[in-house]
Amino acid sequence: VTSESDFIASLRALATTPAARNLDDDAAVLEIGGMRIVITHDMIVEGVHYFAADPPEDVAWKLVAVNLSDLAGKGARPAGVLLGYALGTSDWDQAFVRGLKTALSAFGLALLGGDTVAAAEGAPRTLALTAIGQAHGPVPSRSGARPGHHLWVSGAIGDAGAGLRLLKDGLAEPASLVERYRQPRPRLEAGERLAPSVAAMMDISDGLLIDAARMASASGCSAAIELDTVPLSEDLLALSGGGRSARIAAATAGDDYELLFAAPAEDAAAILALSEAIGLPLSRIGRFEAGAGLSLSDGGASVALPDRLGFEHGE
Amino acid sequence: VTSESDFIASLRALATTPAARNLDDDAAVLEIGGMRIVITHDMIVEGVHYFAADPPEDVAWKLVAVNLSDLAGKGARPAGVLLGYALGTSDWDQAFVRGLKTALSAFGLALLGGDTVAAAEGAPRTLALTAIGQAHGPVPSRSGARPGHHLWVSGAIGDAGAGLRLLKDGLAEPASLVERYRQPRPRLEAGERLAPSVAAMMDISDGLLIDAARMASASGCSAAIELDTVPLSEDLLALSGGGRSARIAAATAGDDYELLFAAPAEDAAAILALSEAIGLPLSRIGRFEAGAGLSLSDGGASVALPDRLGFEHGE
Repeated sequence: VTSESDFIASLRALATTPAARNLDDDAAVLEIGGMRIVITHDMIVEGVHYFAADPPEDVAWKLVAVNLSDLAGKGARPAGVLLGYALGTSDWDQAFVRGLKTALSAFGLALLGGDTVAAAEGAPRTLALTAIGQAHGPVPSRSGARPGHHLWVSGAIGDAGAGLRLLKDGLAEPASLVERYRQPRPRLEAGERLAPSVAAMMDISDGLLIDAARMASASGCSAAIELDTVPLSEDLLALSGGGRSARIAAATAGDDYELLFAAPAEDAAAILALSEAIGLPLSRIGRFEAGAGLSLSDGGASVALPDRLGFEHGE
Repeated sequence: VTSESDFIASLRALATTPAARNLDDDAAVLEIGGMRIVITHDMIVEGVHYFAADPPEDVAWKLVAVNLSDLAGKGARPAGVLLGYALGTSDWDQAFVRGLKTALSAFGLALLGGDTVAAAEGAPRTLALTAIGQAHGPVPSRSGARPGHHLWVSGAIGDAGAGLRLLKDGLAEPASLVERYRQPRPRLEAGERLAPSVAAMMDISDGLLIDAARMASASGCSAAIELDTVPLSEDLLALSGGGRSARIAAATAGDDYELLFAAPAEDAAAILALSEAIGLPLSRIGRFEAGAGLSLSDGGASVALPDRLGFEHGE
């Protein structure tokens, strides 16, 4: 099997346009006639990204949400989606369409088109979605963070990972955590409001630590994260206790679909005012520094990095 | 297994925007800021749309070409593509990237982005491409043909189908036919030049007869095709003899990736002049009439429709 990083390196040679952003970003940004069109494409594979026994409605929601989260990370307002669908069994397919309807309705979107194919007999299915949107201002990359910038996250971290662990243990409570795993809410409004002023932005899909490390690496600096400032929900605190190991678990769990962004220190007040205005917590969790890599602290004391920062891409 | 037509019918209820064209077209047409963005998404499945033993370079070419052919059918100029790729073996993947490079270079395009995923162990792979383009004028649908309009095709019909049969028989000659199967050339220039004036247009992917029947059905009329005017290449004529059964085989074979379009009778001279100008045959092969369905004639005599008009979608 090809290493994914080798494969992407070979693809990068074909990404010979600024719109591709060297394949370092989660979306392409095409400038057409003065408009900024943002477009992203994510696939999910049965047995890899979802379980065959997962409710099809939730698989549909997730397929939509993960793509919209990429648009949110670029501050784009979605205009529609195209579905790439491998037909399966009638019941599953019909339940998937119901879930797709629920998700598209929730985000006020229509299905624009796509392709339906016969799946190979007995093969796990691959489902694909392309989301297209428009940015009404500058589109932040993940490479614009600079030493001195603050590192921020939206919402709460680790809920979805805890929800997944609950499901694996056959549990369904607290329902709020399971819901955060099954029906992530891309931070579209926050992304659109933040995009014009942030220095760098992306969504958190593979884990806070690994995604922060990626932003730092793309930006040519290091990130120092204060674990005790990473926002955890009340339900997660109640379940996990909120100790250091629980915070590390939350910061490496993945599936958050929150926003991660860098902003100059002097923007802090404006960001907190925006948080008030849109009713979504925005929390300062660290800062960027000269150098490379990631460092962790907890209550001012340095903490060793965990062996695993999150999901490697494609995992 | 769900019937594809039932599934698409249920999706159609989600296509609640004119941009989706009721999912009847091969591409969506988004109007953004006065620009017409045309976007299409096609998937190909190992063992369904290509053989595991096919050269990966050709699979890559075909994946690009079939998507660009959808843009050609809408008269859009491609701006780039996004790849959805399931990793396989290293050799195959690297050969695929070489083929992708060849194809993108041939069409002057860059890779914009996409997604790479781990394939489920041992599963046939699903590859997806999204192509995005811009139309600089009206975007023809497949539903604009009216009784009295002429039915036209570009290029030659049946070459690719003959090439596939040759390959299945272990033959590689005539090479021109095999090449037409392995490396279809989407008719981008012709599509862009024809789009502003045609009444209806689409590409021919599943077979001339079935795609003509689809255009007639979408347009609420019938199509009468004169088999003896369907353009066959010299190599195909030499191989097949060009008799009636050979012409029916060509018209139902699929994989042509030629353009099929409807135009008022008075436009014939302008269309032939365009054909001269761009060096691509454009041939009048019939006309639209009141009623429904498809009829065939050969040398003025009525001919029964074959049982099979081409590939059903998803086949």
